[in-house]
Amino acid sequence: MMDWQAEIEAAQARISPYVRRTPVMEVAGLGRSDAVTVKLEQTQLTGSFKVRGAFNTLLSQPVPAAGLVAASGGNHGAAVAHAGARLGHRARIFVPEMAGPTKIGLIERLGADLTVVSGAYANALEAARTYEAETGAMQIHAYDAPGTVIGQGTCMAEWEDQRLDADTVLIAVGGGGLIAGALAWLQGRRKVVAVEPEQAPTLNAALAAGAPVDVEVSGVAANALGARRIGNICLGLVQNHLGQSVLVSDDAITAAQQALWRELRQLVEPAGAAALAALMSGAYVPEPGEKVAVLICGGNIAPEPF
Amino acid sequence: MMDWQAEIEAAQARISPYVRRTPVMEVAGLGRSDAVTVKLEQTQLTGSFKVRGAFNTLLSQPVPAAGLVAASGGNHGAAVAHAGARLGHRARIFVPEMAGPTKIGLIERLGADLTVVSGAYANALEAARTYEAETGAMQIHAYDAPGTVIGQGTCMAEWEDQRLDADTVLIAVGGGGLIAGALAWLQGRRKVVAVEPEQAPTLNAALAAGAPVDVEVSGVAANALGARRIGNICLGLVQNHLGQSVLVSDDAITAAQQALWRELRQLVEPAGAAALAALMSGAYVPEPGEKVAVLICGGNIAPEPF
Repeated sequence: MMDWQAEIEAAQARISPYVRRTPVMEVAGLGRSDAVTVKLEQTQLTGSFKVRGAFNTLLSQPVPAAGLVAASGGNHGAAVAHAGARLGHRARIFVPEMAGPTKIGLIERLGADLTVVSGAYANALEAARTYEAETGAMQIHAYDAPGTVIGQGTCMAEWEDQRLDADTVLIAVGGGGLIAGALAWLQGRRKVVAVEPEQAPTLNAALAAGAPVDVEVSGVAANALGARRIGNICLGLVQNHLGQSVLVSDDAITAAQQALWRELRQLVEPAGAAALAALMSGAYVPEPGEKVAVLICGGNIAPEPF
Repeated sequence: MMDWQAEIEAAQARISPYVRRTPVMEVAGLGRSDAVTVKLEQTQLTGSFKVRGAFNTLLSQPVPAAGLVAASGGNHGAAVAHAGARLGHRARIFVPEMAGPTKIGLIERLGADLTVVSGAYANALEAARTYEAETGAMQIHAYDAPGTVIGQGTCMAEWEDQRLDADTVLIAVGGGGLIAGALAWLQGRRKVVAVEPEQAPTLNAALAAGAPVDVEVSGVAANALGARRIGNICLGLVQNHLGQSVLVSDDAITAAQQALWRELRQLVEPAGAAALAALMSGAYVPEPGEKVAVLICGGNIAPEPF
């Protein structure tokens, strides 16, 4: 039985010289009159939480001379590219075409070797596995490996260090690495609400089926939340600790993106606004007096503003 | 002799139910390898620090039935419109044409009555003074009134509450309300560096002349930093407490805007990036080991991303 909290505390100490402590703030007017607490994790290095898992993985095991390999819709690839470059390892990233030129360009700028793969995330993952087998490079899974989940768990641990005052935390779900880390850290101490796009309902489908199942993915957030199947680690933690699973439409995600700009001058990618969309659209309705927190997890919007 | 610190503390208590406590963070890679502390004041209500001065003014004196009047290049007008609406006062804002459609639209959305005036800020100020004389409406000066300066001073007081660890603070200057508030609060306890665009050097010219003088204003930040003449209150505080006054080019401002997006996923207006531009361009060069903080003060970029 994994002692998740001890592992996440160890990861915090391990990665803290390499990642940012991202800011938190209280904001009224985001879908309810009561203030909502937000954590601006999109101000993290490379624009998403993903560097936490990447650094934790690289700093907790030996890295082979063949370097690193990852499959990624974009943000995880950028994180592996950054962490690899920072720690002196070559990195080969397999990116699905649907990641789009902004995220692909970001990974290139970070100095990784890049292979663009036709199709969706699952195809890129297959190519990465072949490369791993052929070269002996170290695979960093985007969400379904303990080192990744433990690294992402530092985000929630950090938020509690920052005196998080919330009954409930809303978190967007793609493959489930971020929410798995949060559930592993919290161990049921706060209600966690999983938010998925209607067009990428990997967790929702797995909960209905009782096991991970493949789903079709599309929509505005697919390049970040478009894992085709939820991670096993995530599903196990969800079955023990999740408060609620909700779905949001693409229109609700876009409206939440616009609200984050209008109310807070934060420009985020669709995935980064998905958790807020649940609150603003009524997909999740808090009880009167319930204190709600929303994790803003990614900022790599396309096209880039400059 | 004004007891600035006591006044600013009283203002903090007065306005805290109405304004946001804006986040701070440490960021490496912004023009130097050492971490720089930034305060993201552009996440304030209406996208700039200006609501601090507006609420402080409205909450510390009676408001006539004729309501409020302000002249503004945009951000102050938005702040007066917001504070007026929040507290139930009509507001008439005179906006110079150069404010541009984004800021003009923002003020309209906030429910103020708007008059667009040909020319620059000084022309709008003249129109506002005429309206004030004719109607008895209360004028809220954008920068050169004690209530405004005291309100803006809460930004630096709040930053110190947030355990600011810096020898030096870089602050952009237009009419000088924000830096005046900071100087009034700090009373020489930290070095303050004033940063102005080369094309709007109101403070620089006043320091050279020994008194406020009119300057020509233009350039990318003119709609926010384009006051034609520095405030008297600011100049007095500067003569007692300022560490240094530097100028930055429009290219340096644009480069700092791009860096804030690339490194931090913060999209800010030119004025909001001007202080950082001084550090990145070498207009201000810290000593080895000098801890530097940069105030990011405005986010109302045009055109808006949505």
